Amino acid sequence: MNSKEKSEPGPSSLFAQRMRTIPKSFIREMLKTAASKNIISFAGGLPDENLIPAQQFKEAFIRANSNYGNKLYQYSNSEGFLPLRQWIASRYKEKFDIKVSAEEILLTNGSQQAFDLVGKVFIEKNDKVIIEQPGYLGVIQSLLGFEPQLVDVPLDQDGMNMNMLKKKTRQFKAKLMHIIPNFQNPSGISYSEAKRVELAKLITERGMILIEDDPYGELYFDKEYKRSPVKKLLGDHGVLLGSFSKTLSPGMRLGWMVASPEIIDKLIIAKQASDLHTNNLSQMMAYEYLAVNDYESHLNKIRTCYKSRKDMMVSAIKKYFPEEITANIPEGGMFLWVSLPRHLSSQKLVRLCMEMGVVFVPGNVFYTDGMGENTFRLNFSKSTDEEIDKGIRIISDAIAYLKSKNNCMNISSWQSCKYRDSQF
Amino acid sequence: MNSKEKSEPGPSSLFAQRMRTIPKSFIREMLKTAASKNIISFAGGLPDENLIPAQQFKEAFIRANSNYGNKLYQYSNSEGFLPLRQWIASRYKEKFDIKVSAEEILLTNGSQQAFDLVGKVFIEKNDKVIIEQPGYLGVIQSLLGFEPQLVDVPLDQDGMNMNMLKKKTRQFKAKLMHIIPNFQNPSGISYSEAKRVELAKLITERGMILIEDDPYGELYFDKEYKRSPVKKLLGDHGVLLGSFSKTLSPGMRLGWMVASPEIIDKLIIAKQASDLHTNNLSQMMAYEYLAVNDYESHLNKIRTCYKSRKDMMVSAIKKYFPEEITANIPEGGMFLWVSLPRHLSSQKLVRLCMEMGVVFVPGNVFYTDGMGENTFRLNFSKSTDEEIDKGIRIISDAIAYLKSKNNCMNISSWQSCKYRDSQF
Repeated sequence: MNSKEKSEPGPSSLFAQRMRTIPKSFIREMLKTAASKNIISFAGGLPDENLIPAQQFKEAFIRANSNYGNKLYQYSNSEGFLPLRQWIASRYKEKFDIKVSAEEILLTNGSQQAFDLVGKVFIEKNDKVIIEQPGYLGVIQSLLGFEPQLVDVPLDQDGMNMNMLKKKTRQFKAKLMHIIPNFQNPSGISYSEAKRVELAKLITERGMILIEDDPYGELYFDKEYKRSPVKKLLGDHGVLLGSFSKTLSPGMRLGWMVASPEIIDKLIIAKQASDLHTNNLSQMMAYEYLAVNDYESHLNKIRTCYKSRKDMMVSAIKKYFPEEITANIPEGGMFLWVSLPRHLSSQKLVRLCMEMGVVFVPGNVFYTDGMGENTFRLNFSKSTDEEIDKGIRIISDAIAYLKSKNNCMNISSWQSCKYRDSQF
Repeated sequence: MNSKEKSEPGPSSLFAQRMRTIPKSFIREMLKTAASKNIISFAGGLPDENLIPAQQFKEAFIRANSNYGNKLYQYSNSEGFLPLRQWIASRYKEKFDIKVSAEEILLTNGSQQAFDLVGKVFIEKNDKVIIEQPGYLGVIQSLLGFEPQLVDVPLDQDGMNMNMLKKKTRQFKAKLMHIIPNFQNPSGISYSEAKRVELAKLITERGMILIEDDPYGELYFDKEYKRSPVKKLLGDHGVLLGSFSKTLSPGMRLGWMVASPEIIDKLIIAKQASDLHTNNLSQMMAYEYLAVNDYESHLNKIRTCYKSRKDMMVSAIKKYFPEEITANIPEGGMFLWVSLPRHLSSQKLVRLCMEMGVVFVPGNVFYTDGMGENTFRLNFSKSTDEEIDKGIRIISDAIAYLKSKNNCMNISSWQSCKYRDSQF
């Protein structure tokens, strides 16, 4: 063995720099822990699986078999199954009078993949990307892999704070902006019509691209809620993301991107390089489902169910939580956003609550700068009324305990404390 | 409108640099053209869809519905469905006596995604990656997105040319090496046992990682063919990729990666960031198929069928092609590799052949340096005996025509030439 062949450091020395910046998904890791115990979870962002139309999927599977034969299982094109893209295009036309052709639609493995493709096509190291604060973890995790500089803009009740946004766009030459316009994850807020117009104007003027991520748009609680995608005002400057994960099935991994032909062309190349194409079986089954069933009445079932759970959670919060705690009440979607008084830590609260049988997501994980320590996110789409009432009561008990200990207790002292025995 | 708000260049000015280096998949684009006409295709790498066990999949779908209920359609973990990972682990144990635990296996959307995850975890701009020459297009396309420097090492009949490999590894400090050890795409060659040992030694000594990509390993023509994955000799230095695309179904998008826990941990983070998790329905159906059916006898059907098509193609080549044309005869897989005399161009040949009703892939696309102009790849897995005989005859006629024109004709002159009318 000559000098060049001396023993080399292990494989971990070969990891790319970017792996230090992509965080492991906190929520997915926490869900694993939660799943192993039997506790009430307000942590995830899962749809209620009882609302998944499994019987209709069975029928769709049979039809797909007879209509496409073994093509169901063969390689397919990178763009996605044409009839499904046509169906999506026609829904935009019908609902929002947006003229989109099937050629402007690319099917993805859920919206998460859309972030990755956007990163591949647009982001170079140190590029500036504007995101919402608090922001969606999935997009933060995905974009960080491309080592951009994320620029946070705080959210008001009706969308991004425009003064701050204008200040930041003057300060930084940003390429992209990511927003969730309807029932945002995690805050639950929605962009007003006025803010959408203002945003479109700014995006166009600055020559940026808006990544408009709309997985929850169909889940409104009031049928009067109807706001057009910002994409309608943006033309080439808008990339609109949609998903069947919250309406049909997350496990089938079906999302889509709408963009101008020039951008779609690049996204298709990125898609080929990433995984050739999206699962054929899922695409054809989803199309067969949509072609035959009344999608709107299926959506109405989800809307009614989630609205009632949101109402249940809001009333439990009113019933149990002390008055100084505020909650955003969303007009749709799956999340409620809670703010504690400044001196209380939701990290401490969640650790205490996990011991007491309920889990949620502390707010600081949605901030890239470590802020939001006194906030947290509650999911209401997957819990029964009883679980919601019991869970909120437990959280409120934990808050009371934290307040009584003046915010300085730790788990081990709690585990041995008298309060625990008497109360739970 | 102030001076800062002057009109900005269009969105295309925002594309990342890497998009200039990722080529559009030549084969997929060619297949689109071919599909729109009715011509014999030796171009793709598609399995014969008549060999897909669609009836058994139907039964697997029904069982999956009754065993997993709506979990079939719900979000799942990023690692993949545990019973399927356990099945894969036990198959390695059984077949090659390789001890792999389910925790060392990550399920992916086909092997193509594995390349992307490898890129994310390991490759920084200008890192050196050793690839085979000729090399697999899919991996080249995927890795180029990470802007590495690809270092080609030519293939001998029994694997990489070791002298050249040693020279290149002395010249470049490479991080990764990618090989297809069995029935390589495009050349059809397989690594000998001796070369596998030599390769493992070099990889370990140099502190590199071997990406051992084995989508075709099950498709051997002779039941005596059995060579252990190099991973068995490599420990932490090996990442082994497998796939159900060539044995069960490509459209279900199911591949996997085997790596040490430390590497798998990083790959899972990259997977989360890329698309959260692989299609649940596919994973559960595949597992239900494998748990009940005789996989080995299914594989034997594919082996017998592809062997007979390979034999048919070899005999057609012997019958029609002039003697100076050589072909690699593979011991398995889906491809035959042909070398023309140096002065003949396979690019010109394929353009001529497309007009004449047959298509294949010119060899230069498998070379990153523009070489291989006189080679081409023939796929035999998807054509009938009649198509193989007719297709090879057409190619041989086209070769004869090219030779007669002394390799300087173009399509328009061919379209109007007398030869065409008399012969086809």
